[in-house]
Amino acid sequence: MQLSSQHTLHDGQLSFYRHESTVNQASMGFAIYLPPQSTSKPVPVLYFLSGLTCTEENFMIKSGAQRFAAKHGIALVSMDTSPRNLGLPGEDDSYDFGSGAGFYLNASKEPWSRHYRMEDYVVKELPGLIEEHFPVQPGNRSVFGHSMGGHGALTLALKNQDKFRSVSAFSPITAPTQNEWGIKAFTGYLGDDRTLWRQYDTVELIKSGVAPMPLLVDQGLADEFLTEYLQPEKLLEVCEQHKHPLTMRQHAGYDHSYYFISSFIEDHISYHAGYLHQD
Amino acid sequence: MQLSSQHTLHDGQLSFYRHESTVNQASMGFAIYLPPQSTSKPVPVLYFLSGLTCTEENFMIKSGAQRFAAKHGIALVSMDTSPRNLGLPGEDDSYDFGSGAGFYLNASKEPWSRHYRMEDYVVKELPGLIEEHFPVQPGNRSVFGHSMGGHGALTLALKNQDKFRSVSAFSPITAPTQNEWGIKAFTGYLGDDRTLWRQYDTVELIKSGVAPMPLLVDQGLADEFLTEYLQPEKLLEVCEQHKHPLTMRQHAGYDHSYYFISSFIEDHISYHAGYLHQD
Repeated sequence: MQLSSQHTLHDGQLSFYRHESTVNQASMGFAIYLPPQSTSKPVPVLYFLSGLTCTEENFMIKSGAQRFAAKHGIALVSMDTSPRNLGLPGEDDSYDFGSGAGFYLNASKEPWSRHYRMEDYVVKELPGLIEEHFPVQPGNRSVFGHSMGGHGALTLALKNQDKFRSVSAFSPITAPTQNEWGIKAFTGYLGDDRTLWRQYDTVELIKSGVAPMPLLVDQGLADEFLTEYLQPEKLLEVCEQHKHPLTMRQHAGYDHSYYFISSFIEDHISYHAGYLHQD
Repeated sequence: MQLSSQHTLHDGQLSFYRHESTVNQASMGFAIYLPPQSTSKPVPVLYFLSGLTCTEENFMIKSGAQRFAAKHGIALVSMDTSPRNLGLPGEDDSYDFGSGAGFYLNASKEPWSRHYRMEDYVVKELPGLIEEHFPVQPGNRSVFGHSMGGHGALTLALKNQDKFRSVSAFSPITAPTQNEWGIKAFTGYLGDDRTLWRQYDTVELIKSGVAPMPLLVDQGLADEFLTEYLQPEKLLEVCEQHKHPLTMRQHAGYDHSYYFISSFIEDHISYHAGYLHQD
């Protein structure tokens, strides 16, 4: 684990690291913000999963989350959205597949299956590393994300309710098995058997009857990807049908950018703090 | 004036524009954040001057200022740090001269004098444009900045106390006539006559006996440019000698980045709001 850079902000420490990931068989970058409270006692951890093309940097630079993490005494962790620079064929050909587009799944199709194991990375390897090396409370974690990372947060939390106390999302891809982004990614990473895709689709997971973990979702109504890729109406519908607890907040005028995230980040961190500070 | 992009955040509107600047004889970019209050009545304007290499984007993306501008009902304006792409000899050869390094002065040496007139741009042309086209209160302005832009804010406000109600700075270059950044810039833009330099040096302006406009300055003590380029001790000394009102806050552990700015931005906006919302 190698420290790339470190900055003080809001009296806490933001650090960028690289390490050799065992599950991805690749060098990966992540960032951790430790709030000032962590110098006297271990703190809970809130994981943020970013959207297409992002690295571990975008959230830490643009969201303004650290102000509220410092207020609530919560560590923040962000990570790259895929391994990079592996030399896999087509790896860098498009923004929505390969580098920067890991979709938070374990690929089963060659050659991606050797390196694209972001589900295991986010659920197992990275939390293990964080809990080994930093002053955080083991197992006291929540997760949220944006767009592709909103999809990641919702699906991984619903499938691992013993591992995450709470989940929320900004502008998530709610039903990737039903749109071009998801179909392209799942075909490439998982192959043509669509039954394998369902475990990576929030709407399908709720249909399948997962336990009723509450979902908090914010969505901008001026989002350029709203109708084609994000489809909040599908999440509303399936949650209504299956009585799955959902708070969906839709906001006129807001787009898909980090400006949207920064406008509602305070609410999300307060929401997770409510769970993470329950003993 | 051409709109490049627009985003809603904190219930206000952030817009990026390009226009043909008369004083700079060049295309310039600026950004304006209009808080939600501006839809019902004109609001005051707080101008932010960025540091070396920055464009109008950095502050708007990284500072988190809009949250507090929205709270206090103040518009924020940022602008590029120089004209660009003019084809002047050596324009893009270094990070600290030419493109991205206008130093908020009116160049008097050819060929820069034709296009590098950032003092007139910030003090006259841009406020004129803003007050003509947006719902803001004419003449109700304050200014702040970072690094080279901290130098710009302090010098321009001290020389134009009728035009700016208040001034503050993060990590300003306090005495550019005494360090390599300033000497290189002033030699290139103004020539060898050092008497011309003094009007662009905060320490020299205070020595010359400007009216006692209060200064608020925040400085990180882990700033990589602290001793060689920023030299807060020179500002402390000259303000002490000349009884010039100064609040200098020095912060252990903080560096020169926007993470530092974002940590103390709330205080600066509250400070300016106190002046901008008088009477």
